[in-house]
Amino acid sequence: MRHDHLITSKQLSRADVETVLDRAAEIDADPDAVADRHTNTLLGLLFFEPSTRTKMSFETAMKRLGGDIVDMGSIESSSVKKGETLADTVRVIEGYADALVLRHPKQGAATMASEFVDVPLLNAGDGAGHHPTQTMLDLYTIRENAGLDDLTIGIMGDLKYGRTVHSLAHALTNFDTRQHFISPESLRLPREVVYDLHQADENAAIREHDSLEDVLPSLDVLYVTRIQRERFPDEQEYQKVAGEYQIDAETLEAASDDLTIMHPLPRVDEIDPEIDDTEHAAYFEQAHNGVPVRMALLDLLLSDERGGEDDE
Amino acid sequence: MRHDHLITSKQLSRADVETVLDRAAEIDADPDAVADRHTNTLLGLLFFEPSTRTKMSFETAMKRLGGDIVDMGSIESSSVKKGETLADTVRVIEGYADALVLRHPKQGAATMASEFVDVPLLNAGDGAGHHPTQTMLDLYTIRENAGLDDLTIGIMGDLKYGRTVHSLAHALTNFDTRQHFISPESLRLPREVVYDLHQADENAAIREHDSLEDVLPSLDVLYVTRIQRERFPDEQEYQKVAGEYQIDAETLEAASDDLTIMHPLPRVDEIDPEIDDTEHAAYFEQAHNGVPVRMALLDLLLSDERGGEDDE
Amino acid sequence: MRHDHLITSKQLSRADVETVLDRAAEIDADPDAVADRHTNTLLGLLFFEPSTRTKMSFETAMKRLGGDIVDMGSIESSSVKKGETLADTVRVIEGYADALVLRHPKQGAATMASEFVDVPLLNAGDGAGHHPTQTMLDLYTIRENAGLDDLTIGIMGDLKYGRTVHSLAHALTNFDTRQHFISPESLRLPREVVYDLHQADENAAIREHDSLEDVLPSLDVLYVTRIQRERFPDEQEYQKVAGEYQIDAETLEAASDDLTIMHPLPRVDEIDPEIDDTEHAAYFEQAHNGVPVRMALLDLLLSDERGGEDDE
Repeated sequence: MRHDHLITSKQLSRADVETVLDRAAEIDADPDAVADRHTNTLLGLLFFEPSTRTKMSFETAMKRLGGDIVDMGSIESSSVKKGETLADTVRVIEGYADALVLRHPKQGAATMASEFVDVPLLNAGDGAGHHPTQTMLDLYTIRENAGLDDLTIGIMGDLKYGRTVHSLAHALTNFDTRQHFISPESLRLPREVVYDLHQADENAAIREHDSLEDVLPSLDVLYVTRIQRERFPDEQEYQKVAGEYQIDAETLEAASDDLTIMHPLPRVDEIDPEIDDTEHAAYFEQAHNGVPVRMALLDLLLSDERGGEDDE
Repeated sequence: MRHDHLITSKQLSRADVETVLDRAAEIDADPDAVADRHTNTLLGLLFFEPSTRTKMSFETAMKRLGGDIVDMGSIESSSVKKGETLADTVRVIEGYADALVLRHPKQGAATMASEFVDVPLLNAGDGAGHHPTQTMLDLYTIRENAGLDDLTIGIMGDLKYGRTVHSLAHALTNFDTRQHFISPESLRLPREVVYDLHQADENAAIREHDSLEDVLPSLDVLYVTRIQRERFPDEQEYQKVAGEYQIDAETLEAASDDLTIMHPLPRVDEIDPEIDDTEHAAYFEQAHNGVPVRMALLDLLLSDERGGEDDE
Repeated sequence: MRHDHLITSKQLSRADVETVLDRAAEIDADPDAVADRHTNTLLGLLFFEPSTRTKMSFETAMKRLGGDIVDMGSIESSSVKKGETLADTVRVIEGYADALVLRHPKQGAATMASEFVDVPLLNAGDGAGHHPTQTMLDLYTIRENAGLDDLTIGIMGDLKYGRTVHSLAHALTNFDTRQHFISPESLRLPREVVYDLHQADENAAIREHDSLEDVLPSLDVLYVTRIQRERFPDEQEYQKVAGEYQIDAETLEAASDDLTIMHPLPRVDEIDPEIDDTEHAAYFEQAHNGVPVRMALLDLLLSDERGGEDDE
């Protein structure tokens, strides 16, 4: 991998993705081997939007590599409230840290910020834009459970607003996959995303469905996302739609025994807790995979940096 | 000590308590000896309610053992706001940490959460339920200052709502103690707590008093708690009651020279600052004892874990 | 340096300042040499007011010395809300940490707090009072860029309310400097500060100006501060005043090629971003200097402590 920053999973070739996943697998198999690999390294956390698992998982990853973090804290207690620009904030904080993680509500924020800093910057979500480390842990989980080639995956729920879904779908065009998108009419994939997938892979095997029923038996992986109440003007409408896209034991009677169920979490009612203890459930494992995958990404970017540092 | 989780001090036998206090005393005497004992260990902090000293003291304890923490942060910035269940939150976060500390406003939360995780979970307060690490540091402070056997202790203030008090009183039934409970009528120990104490020790020497006056000369330890303004419908009523249960130099004229005064802090007006520099005052020492005691608990639970880890 | 606490830069002699700046320069030149100098050391952070860069920079400094922090967090989640006094809070937290950093909205808070603790306490800002570590990094930046003797400095903007400015101006009286203060009439230096500067150095070369124009060509350093909107009753009045004290490329045509421009940040409109890439701009370097300077201060105070620790 030869990148200074990680802004979008689109910047990564299939070979890059495999480098990251292979490194993550190595680390996962023997975390003690890297426990002191990045001592005296500080990762700066700039979260301009709330986050639990992404932030904790980056923090854990850096600490499991022997390093530590410096956290900007909530924007309520920061200079941002005094009118400081993002460009200024990142330029100040890069003086404290060896790499930066940025989450920001505005699409394009990570790209812009990366132009002002000399240390590696990782995008942890920029509004409706990208969230590449989530995509990498999704790919890792799929590879571990079902393999990334000759894969039939269903992606279900809120396909309209979910940057996680768009990013994953795009990354999967690097592999030999059949993608089924299952959602209510009002939450279908945006047309530009579909267009984009075909641009990335002109033979992309993409289908859209209103219902899980037809497609379920053929799936290796079912990726479920949360349908957000606030998308609907009307509570009744929400209940109707949300109810149709819930998974429980009965739903799974028609599924393959090998079906892997994923979810980026947090879930609300999309997956019945009775599924949690079955072999299908991979969503907690998926959340936990955030650690080795982010360790791999940090390790690769920080090691690049060491080898090829330019003057600052 | 053979426990996977620490939920309540009731789960600990007298021998267990002594194991913890002995370990804490060893650590207190020579903290450098354990400064690298749990390197590469991460403690997950899940505080669903505000806390300063409990949280900082756990953080300090883990770091003084060579480890580090990952903090969920305030619930305002977490997935809890999106409707995630506690069971899901702890299952995600156990993937980041080697042990968890949980504070939660609902009684029973720690027990429930512990059923979903494979790493050791320490209860740092579950509503009106338990707060066993506070009890352990109270016991440690009593033992250091007055001994735990042949002890006469007065517990004064808000005895109705204070989980700290209930938990301490229960733990003391393991030892040869005489317990005097001093409070206004409206803040007496709940009848079920008194019943519980007699169940734990049928010979429990327990007395209740309206006033400190009669009992003060006989006390080895006086444990003072804060009477909360918000318990009273009427400011005047509060002032009258609070005023009667304040300690100052004049109050202490009738006390033994060896009397030890404790308080879980924060205090407001219960103890006059003029007492702070006397030999009686043990409340800051008590707060500081949170560190060696929590170091001992973490050390024992994490070492157990290492020896007897089951598959996860 | 022989001080237990760092409360104000006024307590430091010229020799003390030079000791700190020399140590900072050594650390800056070879940070790896001190990367394990204060392992097993915990710095307690007590910020009763919001801060980004001061707090992160202290955190970075302690971690770059091999130590770690324990953070009280925001006062919303602390015992302060329950009515605890500052004296009690610092006495509890000194039990967790080897040194304390305090920021507090009330002038005099650091002095008061320091009387209650045995570990070194560093003032990170006490209301309109002092902020000595900011002054030290300002002095360090001036010395690196222009030297501290035979210096002509302009200090511009909000001179009335800025504790940063008052503290810096006072510290500069230790050196052979000519100080020009440039501000609108309504934001001039308070008369007592001017008096104070003359008390500190009866030959102090101090002039006040309404406009930058006359004085700019003679300056080695121009220190710009933010004019706060909230100081003005009227938006129009603010716009007029703020507009007059903005720096852009055109302004600088009259300046020396060697002029160094500083700003404590965050800036809003005081300095046009087109200046950022010129040789004049030293404000990001200045922010970054917070790390080696605070490392030097912590190292000196913690090393003192080790040598001359009294019983606690």
